[in-house]
Amino acid sequence: MNTYYTQENHGPYKLINIGRLELEEGGVLEECTLAVATHGQLNAARDNAILVPTWYSGTSKIMEQIYIGPEHALNPDRYFIIVVNQIGSGLSLSPSNAPAEIAGPKFPRVRIGDDVQAQHRLITQHFGIERLALVLGGSMGAQQTYEWAVRYPDMVERAAPIAGTARNTEHDFMFAETLIDAIVTDPAFRDGNYTDSAEVAAGLRRHAKLWTVMGWSTDFFRVGRHKVLGFDNMISASER
Amino acid sequence: MNTYYTQENHGPYKLINIGRLELEEGGVLEECTLAVATHGQLNAARDNAILVPTWYSGTSKIMEQIYIGPEHALNPDRYFIIVVNQIGSGLSLSPSNAPAEIAGPKFPRVRIGDDVQAQHRLITQHFGIERLALVLGGSMGAQQTYEWAVRYPDMVERAAPIAGTARNTEHDFMFAETLIDAIVTDPAFRDGNYTDSAEVAAGLRRHAKLWTVMGWSTDFFRVGRHKVLGFDNMISASER
Repeated sequence: MNTYYTQENHGPYKLINIGRLELEEGGVLEECTLAVATHGQLNAARDNAILVPTWYSGTSKIMEQIYIGPEHALNPDRYFIIVVNQIGSGLSLSPSNAPAEIAGPKFPRVRIGDDVQAQHRLITQHFGIERLALVLGGSMGAQQTYEWAVRYPDMVERAAPIAGTARNTEHDFMFAETLIDAIVTDPAFRDGNYTDSAEVAAGLRRHAKLWTVMGWSTDFFRVGRHKVLGFDNMISASER
Repeated sequence: MNTYYTQENHGPYKLINIGRLELEEGGVLEECTLAVATHGQLNAARDNAILVPTWYSGTSKIMEQIYIGPEHALNPDRYFIIVVNQIGSGLSLSPSNAPAEIAGPKFPRVRIGDDVQAQHRLITQHFGIERLALVLGGSMGAQQTYEWAVRYPDMVERAAPIAGTARNTEHDFMFAETLIDAIVTDPAFRDGNYTDSAEVAAGLRRHAKLWTVMGWSTDFFRVGRHKVLGFDNMISASER
């Protein structure tokens, strides 16, 4: 069990089992459990729901901290906001918390469309909602937002994809390869057959450095925005 | 011997021994040999010389192909153009061609200022030139250009630093770390104690991918500039 992905760090959220999910690449999740955080109340007309899918490595908690609140973009006094953690992201069904038969490297491949299919079932069957006032997501959350708008145009009243692409570029694929390389080339990764996340810390650290370089910008560091986040400088934050 | 760095691939160039070079970080190169390619003729007034330092992983050959020619930025019909390969870059004295006592991981640390000191000795003592009409370089070549202008302002009539920084940003340092990580974390690298460059191909490939991602841009790939360079797509160029 990975103690990072807990109610204590990322809650409160509910684990909602939406049943068997057949995946686009052929795998199956027999009991697909979604970690879901809600804010506000669904109104009587059931037309004030906002769906927020999460981005890569982000959880419902970071979406809450950034976007949700009376003074933030999404106001829970007016809207019923449903934040759904992506499958495989650590809180929803994931390699790190799945039953033994699909744990770790045995976890099947999941695509953006699978997340949207799972969320659609959650929204319609669990919450009984027919129409979303807004779907909002950033990065991989934006990809889910695009997919929602294309797949269920009649359900999506508004779509707000933030910093995401409807179609990956060759540049995106190359960047993703470098991110994957950093993790899988760690000898301790052993094709995913490690037992404790601490074993693969070196590869994760290199992975994080790539995000530091590509996720931000020269200007970000030039004007000292990293200091606002609590880092005096980036050199001492590395292993040297 | 690395067969990539040869006269056949990067020549013609001359190997010029500028003697003992004491380095800024305390090391010494007893016989510092620079690989130097020249184009055009030094005039009688000795005032038409252009110095071109090279960038990281670039050699005098790529500088020639891009910048030098009657139809290019630097015209050898008018100027005496001196291209000096950086110390450690594979053609000048480098870990891969150094005598055993400083070969491979035993090679001392070299700074931009050391390159400039070595080039200054080459320009003044070997070529007998007192004044440079232009110093032009890109990336790490731009760093050498800035250093030339600051260290020898009376010798540098014009300076053209291209896509380089006078002072590295924290972003630069982080990017450099990811580049170093890709190479040194390859188990075959063994702290530099490998015998054949082919052994460390996997790490070099990951290193190259980082340059592909950071050295170019989303727009570069979006408009298909990689196809002009002979790559139908970037996915098939990778190991997958």
